[in-house]
Parts: sequence; C-alpha cells; structure tokens
Amino acid sequence: MSAIDDLTGELARLPGIGHKTALRLAFHLLKAPNDEAQRLARAIVAVRERVRPCSVCGNLTEATPCAICANPRRDAATVCVVEEASDIMAIERTGEYRGMYHVLGGRLSPLDGIGPAELNVRQLIQRVGEGAVSEVVLATNPSVEGEATAQYLRTLIGPLGVRVTRIARGLPVGGDLEYADGVTIAEALTNRREM
Amino acid sequence: MSAIDDLTGELARLPGIGHKTALRLAFHLLKAPNDEAQRLARAIVAVRERVRPCSVCGNLTEATPCAICANPRRDAATVCVVEEASDIMAIERTGEYRGMYHVLGGRLSPLDGIGPAELNVRQLIQRVGEGAVSEVVLATNPSVEGEATAQYLRTLIGPLGVRVTRIARGLPVGGDLEYADGVTIAEALTNRREM
Repeated sequence: MSAIDDLTGELARLPGIGHKTALRLAFHLLKAPNDEAQRLARAIVAVRERVRPCSVCGNLTEATPCAICANPRRDAATVCVVEEASDIMAIERTGEYRGMYHVLGGRLSPLDGIGPAELNVRQLIQRVGEGAVSEVVLATNPSVEGEATAQYLRTLIGPLGVRVTRIARGLPVGGDLEYADGVTIAEALTNRREM
Repeated sequence: MSAIDDLTGELARLPGIGHKTALRLAFHLLKAPNDEAQRLARAIVAVRERVRPCSVCGNLTEATPCAICANPRRDAATVCVVEEASDIMAIERTGEYRGMYHVLGGRLSPLDGIGPAELNVRQLIQRVGEGAVSEVVLATNPSVEGEATAQYLRTLIGPLGVRVTRIARGLPVGGDLEYADGVTIAEALTNRREM
C-alpha cells in the first residue's frame, strides 16, 4: 500500500471524516510546509504521552489532580457528573459553574455491555461518601441512555443524604418552537417558570 | 499551552476543519487505542518522507518515474495536463483515460503572484517538443483561472503542431437543469451533440 493510501486510510478512521475528505487532508499534508505536518504528527504523539485522566475526577489533564480539582477557589461541595471529559470543556466555556466535576467515562448502555462496573460509578459514590459533597449535579446527556444513567445515579446517591439535581431540559436558546421536537416542547412546558 | 490545546490547534489548521471539529478529533485521538493514534502520526511522517513528485509528470509517487509514466501499456502520445496531482486520482478513478499526465502544480493567478514561471510549464513545453506527443488534453479546472491557464497553454502549445483539446463543460451527470447555473446551461447548449 502506498504512503498516500495509508495516510488516507488512517485519516478516514477519524469520526466524521469520509474517504474524500481524508484524501483532501492527505494531499493537504503533502503540500503543506513540512514543519506543519511534523507538528501535527508530534502533537498526536505528545497528547497520548502527556495527557492522563485526573486521579480525582477523571478529567483529562497533564498534571494530576487536574487544574479544576487543585483550584482552592472552586466549590468542593458541588460535584457535576458528566459522561465524558470533553463535556467539562463545554461547561467550563460557559463560565457559569464554579464546582467540581466527575467524569463517568460513558453512560449506561446494556446493549453495548456497559454497566455500572464499566463506568467510574464506584469512585463517585466514594467521593460523595467522604462527606464534603452537598450537591451532585447530574449532567449526563439528555438522551435515552443519559437519562437512564442519571436515574440510576439518583437512586444510588439519594440515600447518601446529599442533594441530587439534574440539568434542565427545554428549548435551546435561539431555537425555534416550530422546529423543536414534541418531547422537547413538552419538557419546556412542564419545566416552565414564573417570570 | 496544554497538549490537547496544541493538538486541537494543529488539527484546526487542516482545510475544512473548524475549532469544534478539531476538538472532537483531538478527544477521539485521546480515547482511541494507542495503536491507532500512533499509526496516524507515523503515516503523516511517512508520507512526507516517502512521497515525491514524479520526475517526468509531477504526479506524487514513491518511485520515480511514477507507475503511470513507467507503464508501457499506456498511450505515451497523449498528455493530460492537470492543476494538481490529486486531479490525476480523480481521472484515474474513471478508468476512461489511458494516456499520460502532466501536473502544473497550480494555475495561473496573477493576483496571487503565480505566473508561468511558478508552474511546470517549461517542462510541459519540453516534453511536447521532444516529438512523441500528438495530443495535449487541457484538464485544468473549469474555473476562471483554470480557463485562463488552458487558454495560455493553448497559445503556447498550438504552434508546436500537436492537437490541443479541452475537457468538455456541460451539465454534470445526475445534475438538475433547474439548479444549474446559467453559464453551465449555456455551455451545455453550445456543446450539444447529435444523438
């Protein structure tokens, strides 16, 4: 197999990258300054060598505990539970949350053989059981599996005597009622607030 | 800068990859089997080390002359002129062309400072001048610059006594008259054929 076919094949393994896009990227990497191609190759190797899950929350980090867990100005009494470390970035970008995180590493999905033992559930229960946590915010995705995971965690954490909350569902800001699905509109109506 | 930010930045330099997609790809590369990430990094390095332009036609290849130039069953009397090596792949996929190629390495674009000296024009004239070529097929893109490049090459090659042809313009197969632009429809009418 030629080096171009080989690179195209590897690029096409990336999510959302089809064969044509992979070919275009391969030719770009061939034509780009050598420096640029080398930097990308090195960045891939570096990210795998340097980035590890935080020993406390599971966030991806180069130092453990991660910058969020190690920040004394963050609210250690609130733990936000997310499916993936990338969800932390999405929440941090809002600048609205000052608590801690806990990365499950996925969501319950019996069909894929993913049960509680495959997720960082035990570590979460242990953290909550240590007593410093007063609220657990369940921020798994608003999908069927994310909801099931949130329900499961609620039944597990509820008895520990901490507040368990779920992120709100409703119409996305800037969204359009006309194009929203029925379930989302129903949730938006149910969760309506005084104004 | 963190390794994730660094990788995201490098991925976002690729054409058609925005910041969000780059972030998604970076997380994929972090979560993928180590083997997969390493193979991509190695494939990038390998393609830069092993792939070179063919000394005859400019096609990207690991052996020079390339497999097309070295193939005695191809028609050496016909040379198809393309802008980029990736265009050769697109033509080869059709299986309709049995001649040789010549890669210009771009197209005339005075605003970007790209004149004949920046393209492999001299090499093309030399190849045609050697006498074995009887037809030059101009397959530069049907864009303003591709047309200008084709016109320029026609005036240059015409006097050498070889046939100079241009790939046809018209409606794309599977296309829709209603959505075609006026210039394309006009070309399709002008180039109509008996049936």
